[in-house]
Amino acid sequence: MSDGKNGLQLRSLLKKSGELELSLVNISTPEPGPDEIVVRVEATPINPSDLGLLIGPAEMSTAKVSGTKELPVVTAKVPEPALKALAARLDESMPVGNEGAGVVIGTGSSDAAKALMGKTVAMIGGAMYAQYRVLRAKDVLELPAGTTAAEGASCFVNPLTALGMTETMRREGHKALVHTAAASNLGQMLNRICLKDGIGLVNIVRSKEQAEILHKIGAKHVVDSTAPTFMDDLTNALVETGATIAFDAIGGGKLAGQILTCMEIAINKTAKEYSRYGSSVHKQVYVYGSLDPRPIELSRAFGMAWGVGGWLLFPFLQKIGPADGAKLRQRVVAELKTTFASHYTKVISLQETLQLDNIAIYNKRATGEKFLINPNKS
Amino acid sequence: MSDGKNGLQLRSLLKKSGELELSLVNISTPEPGPDEIVVRVEATPINPSDLGLLIGPAEMSTAKVSGTKELPVVTAKVPEPALKALAARLDESMPVGNEGAGVVIGTGSSDAAKALMGKTVAMIGGAMYAQYRVLRAKDVLELPAGTTAAEGASCFVNPLTALGMTETMRREGHKALVHTAAASNLGQMLNRICLKDGIGLVNIVRSKEQAEILHKIGAKHVVDSTAPTFMDDLTNALVETGATIAFDAIGGGKLAGQILTCMEIAINKTAKEYSRYGSSVHKQVYVYGSLDPRPIELSRAFGMAWGVGGWLLFPFLQKIGPADGAKLRQRVVAELKTTFASHYTKVISLQETLQLDNIAIYNKRATGEKFLINPNKS
Repeated sequence: MSDGKNGLQLRSLLKKSGELELSLVNISTPEPGPDEIVVRVEATPINPSDLGLLIGPAEMSTAKVSGTKELPVVTAKVPEPALKALAARLDESMPVGNEGAGVVIGTGSSDAAKALMGKTVAMIGGAMYAQYRVLRAKDVLELPAGTTAAEGASCFVNPLTALGMTETMRREGHKALVHTAAASNLGQMLNRICLKDGIGLVNIVRSKEQAEILHKIGAKHVVDSTAPTFMDDLTNALVETGATIAFDAIGGGKLAGQILTCMEIAINKTAKEYSRYGSSVHKQVYVYGSLDPRPIELSRAFGMAWGVGGWLLFPFLQKIGPADGAKLRQRVVAELKTTFASHYTKVISLQETLQLDNIAIYNKRATGEKFLINPNKS
Repeated sequence: MSDGKNGLQLRSLLKKSGELELSLVNISTPEPGPDEIVVRVEATPINPSDLGLLIGPAEMSTAKVSGTKELPVVTAKVPEPALKALAARLDESMPVGNEGAGVVIGTGSSDAAKALMGKTVAMIGGAMYAQYRVLRAKDVLELPAGTTAAEGASCFVNPLTALGMTETMRREGHKALVHTAAASNLGQMLNRICLKDGIGLVNIVRSKEQAEILHKIGAKHVVDSTAPTFMDDLTNALVETGATIAFDAIGGGKLAGQILTCMEIAINKTAKEYSRYGSSVHKQVYVYGSLDPRPIELSRAFGMAWGVGGWLLFPFLQKIGPADGAKLRQRVVAELKTTFASHYTKVISLQETLQLDNIAIYNKRATGEKFLINPNKS
């Protein structure tokens, strides 16, 4: 283990030539300013949102490893059309890793910074796939005594995204919600929130196995989009819950439109008179992921009161403001080992993060598979 | 001409058997209540929004005429799948016609009602394809002396829709807008508003002829979606205007997604650094028509800050409230013969409205073709 004066940082570099290069660079740790702290990163998850920056559109079937065991280098080809959309990041070596947790091993001179010495903290802000990370004391979340870095590694992205969904539902006037790819880590978390808070949740999954995962944790409404009765099953669940907003991780294909269509049918089951424009109840699908990269196809059998749009955590947090954001974070810390517990299938080092067999697994984004990086794993 | 005690009303009836029936029924005019007036309808336009109720999904190639010359009956087949979506209106004979204008020929006892006797008024509220219409005095718009019913027939739907677009643009924080099917009556009106108010407007048309119509009335930015350079032309116009909201009458196909993609490219031309989620500027397309009934196809090459949704005049008016709505109506009356002038290609009677050769023309919804019904045409 290094002394903290310098350490390895994972970098993703997309070259104008059309080559992606993943590598580890040895960088010296900046001296913390008065209000800053130095954190030894011990746990940082690989989220789908990290894979966008880490691997992006590269074709990993073309990947090769070179370099040394200590400093491996992975290269892979990026298709020409994808390069155009990524012009702004070309030839710029980018650090990766949205969130993580670790132990404070150095501080600046301020009281706030010094108070954190030796504490385990959770962090967000990028460049977490690194041995050390310098941040402002006020930007980290101190974890309660008895909480490990691994337990606190996913304090932000999944918990705040799940809470952001139920918050958005309330703020936009809906009383229940739909979630797709619902057996994911995030989806399970959302089920625990909804069960605890008494919110109606319709889970859409793509297999019997995924349905089984959710039934086991007590999910009430689970519909399988591969079942021949999908549209009827979904409509029934929408009638039972009254859900008129959905959060969709899939993106491509017909699913978003099918959800809107079933919502419209469910609403009209109680409608009293004909409206040529369909029901006046607003139906919303927010797309927050892109598990299916195909175009979204909307058949518009759902009247005129509808919306489909992108949804992201950070704009949501900006919209609700720091005070309401702090309340959500406090809830995450309070329920970190229950509602917001994350489960990992493997803990890997920075070097192991660049092994092709590991990349092949975590880049699949398969339900149930989730990797945790420990950059200081010995 | 009838004495106003009774008169003809056009009806659209969609039968469970899958047959559309258009007919004229003779109804007695209700006695006006104290606050009501009786209007002899002299001009009522056929808008695309009327055609949805009048003809809907019926296959007019199967249409037949029966009945008499005075009371013709048109019947046509409706495809089975469309019937299901229209369950709420089956076997219910519905009056048609959103808006119109005419002369007040009878009133209730209140001062407000009596003050309108003999005046020409503009009306909205359905059932305008009729010789007489009874409404509350406070719901009509008194037209200035020297204004004919034909001039006042389209005071509401197109003018308020066009003003609703620039209002929505302002209220949602955009500084310029895009409009599709832009050479329509509505599109020309929107150009006159934007030229007068100094608002940047990008007009998307589907032919050179339509582009020519707009250039002649002074439109600054006109792009042709059938040109091979469409995407580049649109991007350039978006850079020049800064438009980040679009109102789309087409609906189906790739256009909405192309607009969002070009907006994203235009925004990123001035972006300083790479964001993995695309620009943080919200890009919005509101679909308010369905000239192309195919599904909407969104390829999502436009980051995460986007929305596509339905837009309708009446929910918009409800949202802004009666005081702001009144301001918009006052502007329409003040500029009725300039900014908000409508042009009609043919004036027809109620009987002529049910002639197949006329239906064939007005049901095409072709740019430049617009029919006005005079239910009291002698």
